Order: sequence, then C-alpha cells, then structure tokens
Amino acid sequence: MAYELYYWPGLQGRGEFVRMALEDAGASYLEVAREPEGPHRGMGAMTSLMSTEATGAERSHAAQVPTSARQFANALPFAPPFLKDGDVLISQTSNILMYLAPRLQLVPSDEASRFWANGLQLTIADMVTEAHDAHHPIAGSLYYEEQKVEAKRRAGDFIDVRIPKFMSYFERVLELNRDGVGHLVGAEVSYVDLSMFQLIDGLTYAFPQGMLRFGQDYPLLGALVADVGKRPRLAAYLASERRWPHNESCIFRHYPELDRPAK
Amino acid sequence: MAYELYYWPGLQGRGEFVRMALEDAGASYLEVAREPEGPHRGMGAMTSLMSTEATGAERSHAAQVPTSARQFANALPFAPPFLKDGDVLISQTSNILMYLAPRLQLVPSDEASRFWANGLQLTIADMVTEAHDAHHPIAGSLYYEEQKVEAKRRAGDFIDVRIPKFMSYFERVLELNRDGVGHLVGAEVSYVDLSMFQLIDGLTYAFPQGMLRFGQDYPLLGALVADVGKRPRLAAYLASERRWPHNESCIFRHYPELDRPAK
Repeated sequence: MAYELYYWPGLQGRGEFVRMALEDAGASYLEVAREPEGPHRGMGAMTSLMSTEATGAERSHAAQVPTSARQFANALPFAPPFLKDGDVLISQTSNILMYLAPRLQLVPSDEASRFWANGLQLTIADMVTEAHDAHHPIAGSLYYEEQKVEAKRRAGDFIDVRIPKFMSYFERVLELNRDGVGHLVGAEVSYVDLSMFQLIDGLTYAFPQGMLRFGQDYPLLGALVADVGKRPRLAAYLASERRWPHNESCIFRHYPELDRPAK
Repeated sequence: MAYELYYWPGLQGRGEFVRMALEDAGASYLEVAREPEGPHRGMGAMTSLMSTEATGAERSHAAQVPTSARQFANALPFAPPFLKDGDVLISQTSNILMYLAPRLQLVPSDEASRFWANGLQLTIADMVTEAHDAHHPIAGSLYYEEQKVEAKRRAGDFIDVRIPKFMSYFERVLELNRDGVGHLVGAEVSYVDLSMFQLIDGLTYAFPQGMLRFGQDYPLLGALVADVGKRPRLAAYLASERRWPHNESCIFRHYPELDRPAK
C-alpha cells in the first residue's frame, strides 16, 4: 500500500524533507492534501485528522476525530507533515524519517547508527526552525511586514553566527566519517544526506549573499550537495512538477533586505 | 554500567527532561560535567567530546576528537545534553529519551506507540524552544537586555496564542486516550508524561500570571502534573539537591516584565 503524506499544498515546507527520502527511494506515495477534495482526500481530510476543537463550523469535522484518532492508536498530529502507513500515523518530520528510513534502506540498520542519524536530523531541524524565525522572530501569527525590523536583526545574527556554527559542525561530521567519504552517516547515502541537500538548497535560495562563499568555506558540504543532486531519481524529481518552487510562503524565504554577505 | 549524562552545570535546561526519566526509573547515572575535573570527568570531558575546532588553546582537546568520535561510531554531539551508554553516544533530548525509554520501561513496547510518543515529545521540544525564544527572540549570542523590547512582544504572543495552541492540543490528546486515563501515551506513565510535568512546571515558574488559570483551562493536564509530582522516586528527586532550582540562566526564565495574564 502506498504511503500517504499529509502536508500543506503550495509550498515545499517541512514536508519536502520527507519527499526527498520517498522520491530518492522510488517509494509509492500519495500527497493527500494536493488531491481534489473527496473521502480521505484533499485539505479536508488533512484538517479533520488534526482537529482538536468541536466548536461552530468545525463541529462536523471534529465529531469524527475520536474515531479516526483511535483508529491510529490515538496519534493525533499537532501539525503537518504527518504520514499514514496503513493504520499507523506518524507526525513530526524527523520522526517520520526515522520511521521510514529502515523501510526505504536510507539508514544503516544498526541501532547506534539509527540514533546517530536521528541526532543529526534533529540538528538539521533546529537549523530549519532558526531559518524560519529569521523572517518571523516575533510570531507566526503576525505578517512578516509586522516584524520586519526585528527580522533584519535576527537574520543578521543568523548569517554571521548561526550558519557558521551549524555548518562548521556538519563539515566536521563529514570530515570525521572515514567510513563513508561524502556521507554524514555510515558508508552509503542516508536520509540525512538528502535532508542536508534540502537545507543548503533552501538557505542558498533565501540568502544568496550570505551563502556566497559556502562552497569555499565548507568544501565537503559543497561536494555533498553536488553529489546528491546528481542521484538519478532525485534529479528527476527536482526537475519535475512535483517539486514545488521555493517561495515566500515557505520556511526559506528570499527577502533581499534580510540578505547580505557574512561579516 | 551507569549511564553518563552530559549537560551544563548550574541549570536544569534540556538535560532535566532526561533526568526526569532516569530518576523516575531509579536508573544509575553520572552527571559528568558536575563532577570535579579529571580524566573523563568535569566540563573538560564534556567540551572535548563536542569540539569541532583545532585552533589555538583548543588544539590539545581537538586532537583527541577523531579518536573519541570514532570510538562512538562518529557520533559527535552538536550541543548538550548527550548521553553515553557504554560505547554508544546519543545527542538531542528527544533522541536520548527515545533510546532510553524502552530500557527504562517508560514507553509501551510496540512500534506505533514508540513513534507516537516521540512525535509528542518533539512537540514538547518545539514548545520548549518557543519558551526559550520568548526571552531571546533575536539571538542566543546577545544578552536578554539587548533584546528586551522584542522579548516583550514575543512573550505576549507566547502567552496569548502559543500556550493555548499547544496546551489545548495536549489536553485533547489526554481526552482521547481512553486506554490510560491521565496518561498521554498508552495505559501507564511514560517519559512523555514526565516531560509534560517538567514543561508545565517550567512555564509556571516563568509565567505565573500567564499560567494563572491553567488548572481550570486544562483540567486533565493539571491532574497529570499533580499525579506525576506524587510519584515516590520523582518526588524524592524534586526535593533533593540534585534538582537544580529554576533560574535565569535557563530555558524557563521569570522576568516579571514579560509576564501577564492571557488576553
């Protein structure tokens, strides 16, 4: 049975880290919220699985929640992305990837490596959150324009302090992995390599000035991005219509006023 | 062999979520960075395991990194907390807990429940990051006083929008779990319940005004906190000197100017 991936339509977002793994593995999956509305399809299917309230217009959806949630061992998601695999429902990006990776053969099978991979993935996730907060430092409930002054300050620190802090760490991880040159975990490509591609791709879109010297400063990460981008199934995906373009509804946003070379 | 927990001395921080599980289970563990300096003990032991640089004064530590890191299957931590269990090294709070929980019998053993627990734990972790950013919305590298104006704006949104958003979700999870009344996952206490206690305890310390109506608004979460606090080993821990008091070096900081009742 095909995996069902639930994520907001119209942007890459955190769902893209899951897509990268599914696409690279050639797995069969359905993007539920990109489908036309229908039973178990479309945005309605996604929001009904997430609904926690039973007020006003939401009453008809919310009434179904206890049943659906119990069907999935009480797994009510807080937010997309989430993944349905038969009667199992998994939420949170790194959690979905940790669940999928052994099934897609995108992580070494021993326990220590799987937890090492997940630790790295969570560090990627921390950086993704910081990339988002660079344009929304005050509140997700406010528009960018309402926190533009604060965003400029936070984005400056992100470029000068946080990108070097995270990236020198990841570069060092590549340097230390003598078992698998060019890979973050183990001897072969893992989902962590794919997520690293997506992270650097997003940062390069958002901060072309801030990332200008990236390949020189972090040559092993630069090589990883080049190698991952050449993987046949992934290259086909990236060139396809399924790959939504970067845009300013997403985590990685290009606002020229937030971008500048690192000091 | 005792677990070795590595975390900054002098604060609860993210290490506290790991301590709650170890203490409740009565597990034997050593707080490495709280020990006097010595071979494999003290702050030096912690920072040498995290070192990514080999410049200046750090050269002597950094020279050991490739060896140590390879000893731990290349697991170089980005930041504390991290846990050493024999020759396995695990970083990132939720990852440590996912590794420990089956060993401490603090999670149901089936795969779906373990991933459901981890999804909830990651949602707790997201809220912890937001609680931190309420007083540091611009940069961890700047003092609070340098971002106080922005902090006031962000803390207001945290109280009015984010606490209700997360807590009504967690309350709903408790409501839907008919298998284990008073528990977030499964029929018995899990590490997620212990982390929820710690989260709510921290929020109550930081935002006594913002959390004033908490027990009324979220009665099931209020009952969970009361029940977890009465668990014998945990109550003994909370009353001990091992439980560091909340303070303003930590994630949950009480700055009266950031606290007010929810609108």
